[in-house]
Amino acid sequence: MKQARIVLVNTSHPGNIGAAARAMKNMGQSDLCLVDPQRYPSAEATARASGADDLLARAKCFGTLNGAIADAVLVIGTSARSRSLPLPMLDPRACAKLVYEQPDTKTVAILFGRERTGLSNEELDRCHYLVQIPSNPEYSSLNIAAAVQIIVYELSLLAGDPVNAGQTEIDYATAQQMEQFYDHLEETLVELEFLDPVNPKQLMRRLRRLFGRTRPDQNEINILRGILTAMNKKCS
Amino acid sequence: MKQARIVLVNTSHPGNIGAAARAMKNMGQSDLCLVDPQRYPSAEATARASGADDLLARAKCFGTLNGAIADAVLVIGTSARSRSLPLPMLDPRACAKLVYEQPDTKTVAILFGRERTGLSNEELDRCHYLVQIPSNPEYSSLNIAAAVQIIVYELSLLAGDPVNAGQTEIDYATAQQMEQFYDHLEETLVELEFLDPVNPKQLMRRLRRLFGRTRPDQNEINILRGILTAMNKKCS
Repeated sequence: MKQARIVLVNTSHPGNIGAAARAMKNMGQSDLCLVDPQRYPSAEATARASGADDLLARAKCFGTLNGAIADAVLVIGTSARSRSLPLPMLDPRACAKLVYEQPDTKTVAILFGRERTGLSNEELDRCHYLVQIPSNPEYSSLNIAAAVQIIVYELSLLAGDPVNAGQTEIDYATAQQMEQFYDHLEETLVELEFLDPVNPKQLMRRLRRLFGRTRPDQNEINILRGILTAMNKKCS
Repeated sequence: MKQARIVLVNTSHPGNIGAAARAMKNMGQSDLCLVDPQRYPSAEATARASGADDLLARAKCFGTLNGAIADAVLVIGTSARSRSLPLPMLDPRACAKLVYEQPDTKTVAILFGRERTGLSNEELDRCHYLVQIPSNPEYSSLNIAAAVQIIVYELSLLAGDPVNAGQTEIDYATAQQMEQFYDHLEETLVELEFLDPVNPKQLMRRLRRLFGRTRPDQNEINILRGILTAMNKKCS
């Protein structure tokens, strides 16, 4: 089974973590990451995981999202609402297809936000795509484990589909490399007095979307960093 | 939304009833029937139903399966195991298609059995079809609410495509604007001595690919041009 990292961000209810682990194992997934869970470990998580407690035991826990996605080359956020974000939108089937198109050696992360408020804008800024589960417009917010269930179910349906095998391997920049690039870009824009650190507005967020969408490979991220370095030298 | 009656048979855990109601409402379903639930009503069911407590309030409760399916013209049982039963098997997608093929005036019932033991042989004898959710052969038993979620999700997908509705129209940069941007970028890179005009190699081609892929909108192309202009001022 093609693996995707399932990242649960700041989950309130431990029962949802257990139920998500069970949903994953039912569909042949095993890479569970928890970011700052509000109550965990917990007997309730273990009870709801049922026979999938081995996934819970192996789940990696991080204080911030950075650690959970550092090595990911593709980050997909889940969202109940149509947000006014210019991120490309996927439905769960297209999401599964995109995951399958990535080389097996690369990490793909799918993020699930808080029960009440979902993912923050800062977290969404780390995403290349949003996946939205089609739902009743008058009651659109799925339980987290239910959302995980649908996403991993769609992944499972593509298992063994020969159409999706043998994709060319692109050596994408990792999430960590992208963060280093954004830090460098921000410093340079301040140096250029294009970005006012006292009143930064939405500039970095907009640039994140722009460069996040294009998914630079290793060569391209090196070019971009090289341009910034040339600029730093010239201006100093 | 095409309706199917979701029948939960002899459910042990009231939380599962609540979670199933929520899954149904999320996907636009509203006809919930309970057959001999072991603990119900229950505060746990109401809590897990979250905003779908109206479905619980309207759920019909029966002592035996007979009452719950009396008016159904098509009865589909869910099963985790491949049983040696001479019933036609469906996957969730084929199940949804079959439901949609029934006239709207007719009742279709989908049965979900007990947490540990599923549907009894007597109950399976009442079914026209079995639907099986494909799952990990080593851990195949889904939580009841998770199974309901997948079945109603597949039903919802046949009702049009809400995810694709109301996509915001993006005001992409024109080809001419992109050319102007590339000219400006090239001049700036020469000024920075990052690009050698005598030996330009593949640099501009690579940058064209990078920015071409991301398809900047009007706002983004203005930001990029603004950064270049800030750089020109600083370096001159």
